[in-house]
Amino acid sequence: MNAEFKFDVIVIGAGHAGCEAANAAARMGAKTCLVTMDMNKIAQMSCNPAIGGIAKGQIAREVDALGGLMGIVTDASAIQFRMLNRSKGPAMWSPRAQCDRARYIQEMRILLENTSNLHIWQDEAREILVENGQITGVRTIWDIVLHARTVIITAGTFLNGLMHIGRSKVEGGRCAEPASKFLTESIEHFGIRKARMKTGTPVRIDKRSVHLEEMGLEPGETDYHRFSYIGPQRKLPQLPCWTCNTNEEVHEILRSGLADSPLYNGQIQSIGPRYCPSIETKLVVFPDRESHPLFLEPEGVETNELYLNGFSSSLPMDIQLQALKRIPCFRDVKLYRPGYAIEYDFFDPTQLKHSLESKKVDGLFFAGQVNGTTGYEEAAGQGLLAGINAVLKCGGSEALTLHRDEAYIGVLVDDLVTKGVDEPYRMFTSRAEYRILLRQDNADARLTPISSRLGIATPERTTIWEEKKKNIDEIISFCHNYSIKTEKINPFLEQHNSTPLQRGCKLFDLLVRPELNLSVLSDEIGKLREIIESFGDKKEEIAEAAEIEMKYSGYIEREKQLAEKMQRLEAIKIKGNFNYEELSSLSTEARQKLTALQPATLGQASRIPGVSPSDISVLLVLLGR
Amino acid sequence: MNAEFKFDVIVIGAGHAGCEAANAAARMGAKTCLVTMDMNKIAQMSCNPAIGGIAKGQIAREVDALGGLMGIVTDASAIQFRMLNRSKGPAMWSPRAQCDRARYIQEMRILLENTSNLHIWQDEAREILVENGQITGVRTIWDIVLHARTVIITAGTFLNGLMHIGRSKVEGGRCAEPASKFLTESIEHFGIRKARMKTGTPVRIDKRSVHLEEMGLEPGETDYHRFSYIGPQRKLPQLPCWTCNTNEEVHEILRSGLADSPLYNGQIQSIGPRYCPSIETKLVVFPDRESHPLFLEPEGVETNELYLNGFSSSLPMDIQLQALKRIPCFRDVKLYRPGYAIEYDFFDPTQLKHSLESKKVDGLFFAGQVNGTTGYEEAAGQGLLAGINAVLKCGGSEALTLHRDEAYIGVLVDDLVTKGVDEPYRMFTSRAEYRILLRQDNADARLTPISSRLGIATPERTTIWEEKKKNIDEIISFCHNYSIKTEKINPFLEQHNSTPLQRGCKLFDLLVRPELNLSVLSDEIGKLREIIESFGDKKEEIAEAAEIEMKYSGYIEREKQLAEKMQRLEAIKIKGNFNYEELSSLSTEARQKLTALQPATLGQASRIPGVSPSDISVLLVLLGR
Repeated sequence: MNAEFKFDVIVIGAGHAGCEAANAAARMGAKTCLVTMDMNKIAQMSCNPAIGGIAKGQIAREVDALGGLMGIVTDASAIQFRMLNRSKGPAMWSPRAQCDRARYIQEMRILLENTSNLHIWQDEAREILVENGQITGVRTIWDIVLHARTVIITAGTFLNGLMHIGRSKVEGGRCAEPASKFLTESIEHFGIRKARMKTGTPVRIDKRSVHLEEMGLEPGETDYHRFSYIGPQRKLPQLPCWTCNTNEEVHEILRSGLADSPLYNGQIQSIGPRYCPSIETKLVVFPDRESHPLFLEPEGVETNELYLNGFSSSLPMDIQLQALKRIPCFRDVKLYRPGYAIEYDFFDPTQLKHSLESKKVDGLFFAGQVNGTTGYEEAAGQGLLAGINAVLKCGGSEALTLHRDEAYIGVLVDDLVTKGVDEPYRMFTSRAEYRILLRQDNADARLTPISSRLGIATPERTTIWEEKKKNIDEIISFCHNYSIKTEKINPFLEQHNSTPLQRGCKLFDLLVRPELNLSVLSDEIGKLREIIESFGDKKEEIAEAAEIEMKYSGYIEREKQLAEKMQRLEAIKIKGNFNYEELSSLSTEARQKLTALQPATLGQASRIPGVSPSDISVLLVLLGR
Repeated sequence: MNAEFKFDVIVIGAGHAGCEAANAAARMGAKTCLVTMDMNKIAQMSCNPAIGGIAKGQIAREVDALGGLMGIVTDASAIQFRMLNRSKGPAMWSPRAQCDRARYIQEMRILLENTSNLHIWQDEAREILVENGQITGVRTIWDIVLHARTVIITAGTFLNGLMHIGRSKVEGGRCAEPASKFLTESIEHFGIRKARMKTGTPVRIDKRSVHLEEMGLEPGETDYHRFSYIGPQRKLPQLPCWTCNTNEEVHEILRSGLADSPLYNGQIQSIGPRYCPSIETKLVVFPDRESHPLFLEPEGVETNELYLNGFSSSLPMDIQLQALKRIPCFRDVKLYRPGYAIEYDFFDPTQLKHSLESKKVDGLFFAGQVNGTTGYEEAAGQGLLAGINAVLKCGGSEALTLHRDEAYIGVLVDDLVTKGVDEPYRMFTSRAEYRILLRQDNADARLTPISSRLGIATPERTTIWEEKKKNIDEIISFCHNYSIKTEKINPFLEQHNSTPLQRGCKLFDLLVRPELNLSVLSDEIGKLREIIESFGDKKEEIAEAAEIEMKYSGYIEREKQLAEKMQRLEAIKIKGNFNYEELSSLSTEARQKLTALQPATLGQASRIPGVSPSDISVLLVLLGR
């Protein structure tokens, strides 16, 4: 055995899950090997070159707060930034950035290449090596053995990937990249069940061939928001996107191709992402809609390549092209390539613990699309957690579990391992019970203390967070303590259509009024303005965080109390092999589901579909509560 | 048939040959389609990220003078420039540049994406379509038919590519890229013979693991030289390379792996490039050498990846690694990947005309590694010529042939189609009879008039060349006409250890003296200095060109006369089906070779190995001369 090829953690696949797993593990001090077929495709955005969006933006912020790379790389490669849902409450605010695809890869590669303890190895894993139920390493297609105490599978769509356009099928992990054809079999060998999923991607378009002047224009924002709590601001030129709509003529042509659609002629049996449907699926599911919106998005600063968001398809190339040409702005369109669908293997995530470790093979972790999720952010969040837990496993420490009131990543993992997936799982804010706790502005408050403790956060990140926390507290404390006198404030309140005071109050009591905010109040109250101004270029970020904490303090408090209740159930561990079949007081469905899933806590048991509150009461009694 | 997929020229493969072919064809006004598996790998430098070198540098300059892209892209991505052979005569000067691999791809992609008439299509050609001996198009793996009047095959090492490391074999066109598995068969179907060749590439190294401070340092040059006659100067930071040597301990380990070497255990039968041998081949061929030099070269500005020039290998990975570790500076070395060998299909180039068109299939052209050559520059030169001739074919015009006294590209193509190849063909200055005519400084003089006439050169390029020519002529004319008076010049000559004049002469007569040059003389002769200074930032380039023309005018004149003689033979065309077998006055060998190769001219016949001067005399008589 070569000492050079003995690791603590091996990560198989350098996509969004793999990059975060490798970075987290290496930063925690583990000797880590990231196996990738191609260093030039590290963190390749296989589909839309964009990070964030509703709920996904929150996850990307959480990944950053946990010391991950996605946020830093996004800021460095962003070509259009927007905060979605600004008109709604702050729980719904979601950052999204269109990125320069090539630059994203390069920025991630630079970070990983310069990470201590991390060895990048260009090769393809062919076989997992297991002895006595314990993972020992990986064998590659070059018959090279890499030894490790833990292995994380982050293979994305590469496992037996099969691409479809119309009736044609081609093997591949992604367009122009070979599929991984042996690894699934080697994993199944140890009793881990696999199944198939499907996803798809739209045409890529030559910008020169589009009548952009006839399209709607959607510019980005240039304010202070960003993805990383520590990273620099955006540095690339900011570009607009364009919008247009399909029409009945387009739909007619698309429909004429349905007989040759692999989705509708039986060629593809597996299920695709419900919330990223192909254009043909939209026609079938919404037959009455006369039009669907399309977004034309730049792929980078230096390229003419455009991505047509909303037009994912695996219809025959000719149908895709001819349909597009019936949209006036695309009448002369030239494609770089058609859209295609891809089917790939995933492994039922109920076979995992909350740590993302396999219940079957000790030391084997799974993260990302191989767990049945969709989305770069969902993948990154899982990768980061798997990386952390692989290292904790090596050190014999207890696994890190993120709770549902702590992070969207916690919601994600709990949903996966508790409920499993019957279609590609995508995060939504509606999946979280404690949305007001899980905001994009406070991911650092929730998670940076954890990453600091684990050693993933750089000292710089920890300092930035501590400074920010101090500053937020300073504002909040000032607002709670500063007394307002009626005669001095009332003219100001009248001017802002706010009810005058009958008697004095604290500044805090004014701030929670919907029509007032820190910005307005600091115009009037010099001391407040002075405090905020003293935070320099961080002043907007800090004021925003403080304001949200205060304005929503009622809701926040209520959700915290709910979460605490749930945590009491969560704290009740179900130890050992509990024989549910013998418990006749449980419903039949509950007995079956509990036996199959073997929840780790009463809290998890309560979230299993089919397990009722009365089943939980039975278990409570049995567990001596 | 879709009008969108009907072209004049289809180019299959976007490597160095394909990019030049597509650019030349599109710039000449042909509707051109460049088919590439992956736009992110356009112009990928599969092995050493460097352009130029001895004879290759001249070809790169010729490609530029002909309106090609290689020179412009090299300048834009160069991270170390050197003029090799400076100590020798100007016929031997050869520019070489280490490039940023990722940037090279990006710069080429930008140029191609913005080329009018050029459609880039991401797909894989599976089958050539031929009707009545005439090419009609290409069918892709997605069953998409692209129609065209001409097709150029520039598939590099992708045709049935098979990679080797030790006893392991993996299919692929390049590391991490799928091989093209059907195209060869479809070409063979039309009676075109294929054979196999082999090439290889060395380990890639993580810079952080190398003791660079213990290595020799080789910095680049920062003078005015560049690859493109029109492009901007280098814009990236210039980086050093490092040198070290193998030793007996290293060799011992490498030898211990020979039993598992695919080159020496019979696994690889095909022949590799003689002048780029693997390290194991060097040990076998030069058993007495105690040491071989190695060059460690950066892969880019932003990456830690280093290329170890001189250590190409397909020995087992472990042998490569352990051997390297016996070189002190590599004692802690970490690899990103091992070296590997690759076998691939090529087609005997004697099956081609000088235009690079197949003799068997009308309108089918071949360029680059598929013709049995090695080297990016050799590929680019062929690609450019094939692109030109495909367009001329579409227009019914006579093919462009570059003669042996016009360009290294002419030497290259004439060698290929006349002599064939029994090992990967690499250009050397020694292959050219007219070396003093084929210099790196005068490729524009030789070839830009051709590219201007064909419409490949931009108007800007034509103007730059015309201006330069005028300026060179101005200096030369001044030197021929300016009279030198003995009394005024002799103190200066003595000061420069140059024999004093007995009587007056022209400035030209002084300039040809080895110890004098334009720079020194312009210190003395104000009028000369004034002329040179008037050329602004071009003054060095122009003065160099003028000086070489004058200093070497004797040699140049002699080679021109020799070339004219040969051109007389070249002008004697051998028309129709000449039945050599009936000509008993020819030697048997000559009859066989002439029958097999069917040379187009008496000049070509004279260069066929085995055809003697007396055979040529026989043919001269028969052809009525």
